[in-house]
Amino acid sequence: MDCIFCRIVEGSLPSRKVYEDEEFLVFHDIHPFAAVHVLIIPKRHVESLQSIKESDEAMLGRLMALAPRIAASLGLESGFRTLINSGVGGGQEVFHLHAHVFGGEGSVRIPT
Amino acid sequence: MDCIFCRIVEGSLPSRKVYEDEEFLVFHDIHPFAAVHVLIIPKRHVESLQSIKESDEAMLGRLMALAPRIAASLGLESGFRTLINSGVGGGQEVFHLHAHVFGGEGSVRIPT
Repeated sequence: MDCIFCRIVEGSLPSRKVYEDEEFLVFHDIHPFAAVHVLIIPKRHVESLQSIKESDEAMLGRLMALAPRIAASLGLESGFRTLINSGVGGGQEVFHLHAHVFGGEGSVRIPT
Repeated sequence: MDCIFCRIVEGSLPSRKVYEDEEFLVFHDIHPFAAVHVLIIPKRHVESLQSIKESDEAMLGRLMALAPRIAASLGLESGFRTLINSGVGGGQEVFHLHAHVFGGEGSVRIPT
C-alpha cells in the first residue's frame, strides 16, 4: 500500500491523533502552517475532490460538518479555515482526500 | 436584507455569474487572488460552517462536489483549491457561507 494516509489509518505509520470515528480520522499536520493545523481524512481511500463520485457527496458533507466541531475542540472558537487542495496544480501532495483545518496565532494570512 | 450574498441571489446586487442551479450560485470574486477565483454559495442563507446544523450536511456535500465541476469548466484541469473561512478569527468577511474555488497562474501560494 503506497498511500501514507491509508497507512496512518491502518496504524502502520504513526500520527498525532485528535479524533477518530468509524468514518474519519483527524490528526496533526506534520508541517503545520498555523498554531493549530490538523487534517481530516476519510478512512476509506478517496483520491481527491477531482475523483469523487455522486456516492461520495454525503461523506463530504459529514467531513465538512466535522470541521467546526474539531476546530472548537482545539480552542479555535473565534474561527478557523478549511482548505482542500485538489490535483497537482492545486497543491495536492498526498493523493488521499484531506481537509486542512487551521487557525490561531501564526496562521498563514490568506487574502479573502 | 443586510446580507450582500442574499442580495446577489435575489438579483438586487450584480455579480459575474458562472453557474446557477436551484440550490447554488457561483460567481467571480470581486477581489480575486488568483487567475481564476470564484465563490460557491448556497442560495439559502447559512451563516457559516460554525452555525451549520446536521440538516445542512447534505447541502455541504453537494456544494463541495460542485467545486471540481466548476473548476474544470473554468479551465483548472490541473487542479484547484477550495477554501472556506469560518468566523472572524478565520478571516470570514461575509457571513453567508461561501467556498472560495481558485487556481491558475497568480495563485496565492499556500504551504501544504
